[in-house]
Amino acid sequence: MDQPIGVIDSGVGGLTVASELMRQLPKEKLIYLGDTLRCPYGPRPKEEVIQFTMEMVDFLLKKDIKLLVVACNTATAFTLELLQEKLAIPVIGVIQPGARAAIKMTQKMQIGVIGTEGTIASKAYPEALHSINSEIEVHDLACPLFVPMVERGVLNGPDAYSVIEDSLHSIKEKQQIDTLILGCTHYPLLKDTIQAVVGDAVHIISSGEETAREVSAIMGYHQTLYEGERIPMHEFYTTGSWEVFQQIANNWLNIPINIIENANIVID
Amino acid sequence: MDQPIGVIDSGVGGLTVASELMRQLPKEKLIYLGDTLRCPYGPRPKEEVIQFTMEMVDFLLKKDIKLLVVACNTATAFTLELLQEKLAIPVIGVIQPGARAAIKMTQKMQIGVIGTEGTIASKAYPEALHSINSEIEVHDLACPLFVPMVERGVLNGPDAYSVIEDSLHSIKEKQQIDTLILGCTHYPLLKDTIQAVVGDAVHIISSGEETAREVSAIMGYHQTLYEGERIPMHEFYTTGSWEVFQQIANNWLNIPINIIENANIVID
Repeated sequence: MDQPIGVIDSGVGGLTVASELMRQLPKEKLIYLGDTLRCPYGPRPKEEVIQFTMEMVDFLLKKDIKLLVVACNTATAFTLELLQEKLAIPVIGVIQPGARAAIKMTQKMQIGVIGTEGTIASKAYPEALHSINSEIEVHDLACPLFVPMVERGVLNGPDAYSVIEDSLHSIKEKQQIDTLILGCTHYPLLKDTIQAVVGDAVHIISSGEETAREVSAIMGYHQTLYEGERIPMHEFYTTGSWEVFQQIANNWLNIPINIIENANIVID
Repeated sequence: MDQPIGVIDSGVGGLTVASELMRQLPKEKLIYLGDTLRCPYGPRPKEEVIQFTMEMVDFLLKKDIKLLVVACNTATAFTLELLQEKLAIPVIGVIQPGARAAIKMTQKMQIGVIGTEGTIASKAYPEALHSINSEIEVHDLACPLFVPMVERGVLNGPDAYSVIEDSLHSIKEKQQIDTLILGCTHYPLLKDTIQAVVGDAVHIISSGEETAREVSAIMGYHQTLYEGERIPMHEFYTTGSWEVFQQIANNWLNIPINIIENANIVID
């Protein structure tokens, strides 16, 4: 199928998912919409996250997408079921793929989850994990300092290490987990530093990689993958500022973004 | 959904897939059918593999399965598309999940594939890999000695190491691959020895783990997972001898099998 894959995110974090989609599905065209004007979603009430997400979805549906990726953990926690009910196309969130990958990986049945306050408070990861295996012990922890740190470009070095070490203190002290889910799409940019803090014995699961893998599986299964040969021209839209967006795309993810268009989806 | 997942294999190899399904989806009931009477499928002509597979599928459909796993690479290569067309339930093979996992994993775009003569001759892995990314270089190699070795119970030690080292000589010499797909469901039982031969720098992909992960994803997406709490009673059927079957299940995979029933699916 020629049609593009739609990707929505509260801002720039979903670029880690987009980058993995491009790597694992190099023939597929992406249309990405980041709600940079109203980012972050993490601290917002549920109703607001649903309203904003629906506005983004409407914008992408007009672009004739064949599949929608909700590349934001907070939006996935609050809107995935609703979107899967309402939309005629497949909708893939970032929580379930991470949960399934962690279940595949863990040997000790002790899984850590870190994310924004909204995602952690939603209990979406413990629910996803326990719906499959109720014996898994989940250690979840909100890390509210990580997103602002990534957006300031502090990804490694002593400052990043110090903030991450302090934040993960309670998870690290228990020394029980063998698998840690990065439950926020910003966090893969901190992966090296997080790995250094938690040690090599802990396997880190990055939502982006796992979501791209499941998009590939679902599209393979439904036979909706693009079958010819092409170098796709991706499209990027934001609702507001795009400085951090372009910086993260070009400097850290090696996504060459030349054109970002403004998406006028915000009424007020 | 209460219904069981059906698993078919030419014999005992598919038990590595069943074992991973039990680990990753502990609430799901399995009905496994191994065609031990007519095993192996690897050297058989395509028409025969199709006929035997169809007989097994008919047996499992009568057991009201909700999803079918073709846990045999040769049968997947020859029958997957046909089964997906004909059956009303989802059909998952072992080739595509392994291919997708390898694409996720490789950094050098150099992927090795080892399997039976039938699977390697079918070119199913290069096709699956290239349909997604035509720039991947695939190094495939038939290892006809591995299945008989596993069935004799030789999994490690100097004899196994020597056979595996000789067999993988041509792949190892090139020193290019960073990812190796075990394209036969018997091979995960040799994984430690294969890893020792190819070295730690090569990431080994085991079809069983990856197929179980995709079964979980497809059933999660289609909302057909069992939602309650239960310890399922799995059922195992073979068409002939079950000595090797019980040995592999009990000794090497820690699958407690007390009852194996005979499946009278073979007419002549």
